[in-house]
Amino acid sequence: MTPFTYYNPTRIEFGRDKENNIGKMIAEQGVERLLLVYGTGSIKKNGLYDRVIKSLKTAGIAYEELDGVVSNPLLSRVQDGIDLVKSHGLQAVLGVGGGSVVDSAKAIAAGALYEGEVWDFFINKAPITEALPVYAVMTLAATASEMNGNSVVMNDATKQKYSIASVLLNPKISIINPDLMATVTNAYLAYSAADIIAHTIEVYFTATDHPNFQSRLVESIIKTVIETTEILLKNPLDYDARGEFAWASTQALNGLTGSGTGGGSFPNHMIEHALSALFNIAHGAGLSIVIPAWMKWYKDKNRPQFERFAKEVFGLHTAEEGISALENWFSSIGTPVTLEEAHIPRDRIDEIAENAHGLAVLWGMGEEYPSETIARILQNG
Amino acid sequence: MTPFTYYNPTRIEFGRDKENNIGKMIAEQGVERLLLVYGTGSIKKNGLYDRVIKSLKTAGIAYEELDGVVSNPLLSRVQDGIDLVKSHGLQAVLGVGGGSVVDSAKAIAAGALYEGEVWDFFINKAPITEALPVYAVMTLAATASEMNGNSVVMNDATKQKYSIASVLLNPKISIINPDLMATVTNAYLAYSAADIIAHTIEVYFTATDHPNFQSRLVESIIKTVIETTEILLKNPLDYDARGEFAWASTQALNGLTGSGTGGGSFPNHMIEHALSALFNIAHGAGLSIVIPAWMKWYKDKNRPQFERFAKEVFGLHTAEEGISALENWFSSIGTPVTLEEAHIPRDRIDEIAENAHGLAVLWGMGEEYPSETIARILQNG
Repeated sequence: MTPFTYYNPTRIEFGRDKENNIGKMIAEQGVERLLLVYGTGSIKKNGLYDRVIKSLKTAGIAYEELDGVVSNPLLSRVQDGIDLVKSHGLQAVLGVGGGSVVDSAKAIAAGALYEGEVWDFFINKAPITEALPVYAVMTLAATASEMNGNSVVMNDATKQKYSIASVLLNPKISIINPDLMATVTNAYLAYSAADIIAHTIEVYFTATDHPNFQSRLVESIIKTVIETTEILLKNPLDYDARGEFAWASTQALNGLTGSGTGGGSFPNHMIEHALSALFNIAHGAGLSIVIPAWMKWYKDKNRPQFERFAKEVFGLHTAEEGISALENWFSSIGTPVTLEEAHIPRDRIDEIAENAHGLAVLWGMGEEYPSETIARILQNG
Repeated sequence: MTPFTYYNPTRIEFGRDKENNIGKMIAEQGVERLLLVYGTGSIKKNGLYDRVIKSLKTAGIAYEELDGVVSNPLLSRVQDGIDLVKSHGLQAVLGVGGGSVVDSAKAIAAGALYEGEVWDFFINKAPITEALPVYAVMTLAATASEMNGNSVVMNDATKQKYSIASVLLNPKISIINPDLMATVTNAYLAYSAADIIAHTIEVYFTATDHPNFQSRLVESIIKTVIETTEILLKNPLDYDARGEFAWASTQALNGLTGSGTGGGSFPNHMIEHALSALFNIAHGAGLSIVIPAWMKWYKDKNRPQFERFAKEVFGLHTAEEGISALENWFSSIGTPVTLEEAHIPRDRIDEIAENAHGLAVLWGMGEEYPSETIARILQNG
């Protein structure tokens, strides 16, 4: 057991209709004026927008709006949000949407109290020392952004998809209502499943320490994701499966599974960020390509854990069998496992590897992952 | 998935020597004067007391002391602590010890800001609306008091062992250093194992809802407790096993495993509190008697979950096989499974049942557990 700090002060409000109380919950924390952040309009079509606005108004909370946040959320839109907060003297940021929306809300919350450029935080030029409170109503389960301090944003000018992390950015309150996630397409559900699994196996395989308890938590999450994804692909309205999928997703990246492991690294995310930055594919779709490719390359560095994975998750024996089983499962649910399936030309592998290597350097694994190594991994995909 | 709120703002600092920084950590939160609560002197013998005092002094924190907290901690000693806090104008309470010490620290923290009798909180006469901040350095893993807002105290006048729960009582910071737990006797380790298992299976069996994910988390905890207990009985100095045991213990009662289950009830704790209130036995020793007895009585009310338990934890099939396996395992590690082993006369069962029923009423399960039912359960033990 490696020393660790576990501190996660986010309050989760899980259940049907809880979003109808979001205004009251935020008002109880002394907030009177906030920025409402959302995406490209689906919340207006399904009525969620109206219910959130009604809840804010009932609670006497004034708001400005920032819409148009897209998947692989853009720094330029984050900057728009920061400008709105500063010009209106807003006190908090409420994201209503998926991970991209909440990640944008967090970046705005950090940038709003900083004199310099918010991108400074992403390139480790400045530390985050304060932030506005963040609140979230989730419409997608994948990133665990509802219960962590992470934010991933793409610099549209430089095509760098980078991240920040601070407990100051943990949402104060996050609403998880499985009903709000029921309209996610099967394709996006599959991408989300790949994303959740990625969040757990990065550390599961790369950690310096592998406490059995922590491995069991990871396997519990993965088995739950596999089981509930298969239920939801057939019946998207299964509330309980949707709920378990969402709660497992939250636990996958809220600090719990990595505790005591030494933390490991996030090579699959590092490589994928380059894929989605350059080709604007869904993050989860990129991950389901990268994960099996990376596993085939990495497996001999930690064979016991790969054999454990094969046995505990799939009831198989060898590292290779476990990797194949996961790859086949990704295919079976409809998320890509080759570059071709995502229409990414193989002759751009070197460019992808170069972009990813930039992030590897920033994340302290530049030596382990030179561009040539990343390119070799991508050749497996 | 039943609606739930999960909110656990305790910061866990896990690892070797972390207690040497407790003064600095507390000072950073603005505390200048606190009450130091501990037990009957073992921390003075092993040097922990000296290190904590040194850390407080280095950080410029003044302190008063309350020693002599015993297992099944007494209300009278809690009252002594409240008097000390009030007379010295102390700002926080630091418990250094096991669950009894930290539970006492919490009751003091709540009582210190209340005009009436602190026992009012325990008999639901008044709600806890404010409390001093609590800090903890753990020397025993069992109660999860380090990461929850629960406190169990015995009213020495009335022989009622009752409890309170409020997130206001969650420790702000808890130190878990497995080294500090290495001197626990094998007997107490076994009692602790029974206690941890009890924390998970109460809800696991009695919940209205059984999400597979939540069941998997419980099974992960139980398997880890069984595995690490067996290692520690042979080698008490195994740091990693001690650490996993402690961290699994923390997760067993910090709100995680019950999320989405509807919460269930705590009949084993209800009955055991009467045992330890009347006979002053170790809480875990009482639980290892009550649990198999209760399981034999309850199993037909939730056969699928009992069969699941048998399969997932012990690789067996029937409910009865699972119960026997757990009972035998308790025996094998040296914690009692019959009243006789704990020197509790069978002719006092009615008195125990009457005492327990008082708590059942307070916990809202008086109808499900009339005295006669509790007596029948105890006859199994």
